[in-house]
Amino acid sequence: MFSFNIYNPTRIVFGKDKISQIDKLIPKDAKVLITYGGGSVKKYKTLDKVKEALGDRIHFEFGGIEPNPKYDTLMKALDIVNKENINCLLAVGGGSVIDGTKFIKLAANYDGEPKELLTKGGSHKVKENKNINIATVLTLPATGSEMNSGAVVTCDEGKFAVNNPMCFPMFSILDPTLTYTLPETQVANGIVDTFVHVNEQYLTYPVDARFQDRTSEGILRTLIEIGQDTIKNPTNYDLRANLMLCATMGLNGLIGSGVPQDWTSHMIGHELTALFGLDHGKTLAIVMPSLFEVKKDAKRDKLIQYGKRVFDIESTDDNEIIDLAISKTREFFESLGIKTRLSDYGIKKEQIDLVIEQLKNHNFTSLGENRDIDLETSRKILENAL
Amino acid sequence: MFSFNIYNPTRIVFGKDKISQIDKLIPKDAKVLITYGGGSVKKYKTLDKVKEALGDRIHFEFGGIEPNPKYDTLMKALDIVNKENINCLLAVGGGSVIDGTKFIKLAANYDGEPKELLTKGGSHKVKENKNINIATVLTLPATGSEMNSGAVVTCDEGKFAVNNPMCFPMFSILDPTLTYTLPETQVANGIVDTFVHVNEQYLTYPVDARFQDRTSEGILRTLIEIGQDTIKNPTNYDLRANLMLCATMGLNGLIGSGVPQDWTSHMIGHELTALFGLDHGKTLAIVMPSLFEVKKDAKRDKLIQYGKRVFDIESTDDNEIIDLAISKTREFFESLGIKTRLSDYGIKKEQIDLVIEQLKNHNFTSLGENRDIDLETSRKILENAL
Repeated sequence: MFSFNIYNPTRIVFGKDKISQIDKLIPKDAKVLITYGGGSVKKYKTLDKVKEALGDRIHFEFGGIEPNPKYDTLMKALDIVNKENINCLLAVGGGSVIDGTKFIKLAANYDGEPKELLTKGGSHKVKENKNINIATVLTLPATGSEMNSGAVVTCDEGKFAVNNPMCFPMFSILDPTLTYTLPETQVANGIVDTFVHVNEQYLTYPVDARFQDRTSEGILRTLIEIGQDTIKNPTNYDLRANLMLCATMGLNGLIGSGVPQDWTSHMIGHELTALFGLDHGKTLAIVMPSLFEVKKDAKRDKLIQYGKRVFDIESTDDNEIIDLAISKTREFFESLGIKTRLSDYGIKKEQIDLVIEQLKNHNFTSLGENRDIDLETSRKILENAL
Repeated sequence: MFSFNIYNPTRIVFGKDKISQIDKLIPKDAKVLITYGGGSVKKYKTLDKVKEALGDRIHFEFGGIEPNPKYDTLMKALDIVNKENINCLLAVGGGSVIDGTKFIKLAANYDGEPKELLTKGGSHKVKENKNINIATVLTLPATGSEMNSGAVVTCDEGKFAVNNPMCFPMFSILDPTLTYTLPETQVANGIVDTFVHVNEQYLTYPVDARFQDRTSEGILRTLIEIGQDTIKNPTNYDLRANLMLCATMGLNGLIGSGVPQDWTSHMIGHELTALFGLDHGKTLAIVMPSLFEVKKDAKRDKLIQYGKRVFDIESTDDNEIIDLAISKTREFFESLGIKTRLSDYGIKKEQIDLVIEQLKNHNFTSLGENRDIDLETSRKILENAL
């Protein structure tokens, strides 16, 4: 096991009708900016419940944070934060709204042009000098943003990750019933996102980290068990509760502690979203099975463990276990209605050059747990995914 | 799954030679009281390393916190805290030292006679009004105290649990190499303590909490895998690292979130320690298998799941699975050199009255996940453990 340092001060308030807890958790004298995305939080009255819980607290609203939240949009919210001396950002939505809200806080604490935090990096160095709390009401289990300190934001130059401890939410409300009204495809995307997050921290090489491995395997098995059922039965509380908890635990620092990690699927996936507008979850379903195929030698031991412990594959032939583990991964994504080939989305071989060019522009030239996924290997992964 | 609320702000710094990180984590102007137990932290130079890391910070020492830390001892440390205006308590040791140190902080923040927090309860209501941080350097993986807000303290009236969010350590250093010099019996006790903690949060009745169940099963399987080996190979880093992480994760709030719990083994065990001086781990190894036998109907579904998933028992006869699961639990404890019968420790049937009397005195008359373990059932559990 590698050495590690974990710290996660986010309070999770989990269960039905927990929005009312906001009244206990946000100071009475807070000046709140509620951030949200499209109309669904209005349509399904989530915003009304949030405002009811806020009671007499001074609060403003900022809607319109889009999927893959855009820098320019977030800068408009920053104006309100500065003008109204907001000291509490309350994100109501999924990963995009929460990520965008984290970036608003980072930008409010940054002395220079906030775009530099995306294009030049260094977000982890920003010092917290303004007292602005972040809190969230999660409506879409997927990204894990509700219990971590990272965010992904899009600008003209591409899709960029930021991270800073000041971005841990003070608390997150996880009410599984808020997910009942989600469209099927968003739930499916969220299941894939969670499954891929876990594998990015699990499927590398063994370092004898048994707690982390088994916890990862537990989430993966659970997602396979409940995946199709939770899509088909949107108002089954326990299914949605299990999905929501797995999504949060899949990317809150726990299973990634002390182990090697491989974020190739997310890095290549981000370029596919930026270039072709594919849903984030769908890009991951395309890249990960192909990554496993191309890197099956380096990931050999873990692929065997994954096949045996996650898919219960019994065979004396390790190569067969590996091949089955990869094909079952692909089948799992397809079983959720998520296609796993670039060609399924109309992307052709000649367009791969564009992706490679962007990976090069963003300096993603040595990805993977061994830092050996260069542009040529990324090309192989994409060609194999056609 | 039940509703829940989790919050855990303790930073874990895990790995070899991490004591030096104290210099980064404790403010330069802190006034520190180092608390410890017997001579082993001196003998093996752990205390020297801690003092080196503290550098020029003003610090005092308080040794002699005994196993099952005593109220009177801790009150002597409180005198130093008050006299010297200590604002950082640095516990160097195992669960007893850490528990005792938490109680010192609670007492420093309590207006009345601190003993009331034990005999009258109400520790969770104490308000934090003094700025005193707790930090720990863990030397014995067992209690999980390094990453939770609870403590157990002994006074003339018995052994009592306290709990308050102010007792979360600010950080805990977990260096597996610090455990290399532990006596075998302490390691074995720690393995049993962790195993029992996990089962107290797992082995009740199913509530469809898949993440919690699988994470619990992962810790249990890991302990069974590494238990004997880590006792036999005290300087194997990975074995000790896995044990240390499992012990911390076994009682930090994670696996107990949203599930029923049954702390009967600890409650009865505390009385056995207080009355007969048995090691804490040994009392648990006596009570838990017997508890399972006496409550096998109420715990039926979970015992079957435990048998299948933790011990890989394959049978079409559920009763056989249950019986095997219980006998394998007992065998596991015995394989670590921990006897599981009261008679192994010279405790006779007629002494059970004393235990029942103490359970009555302490109002432990409705234990278990269904609150139905009355004094008569506790008697059955003890008689069955003879």
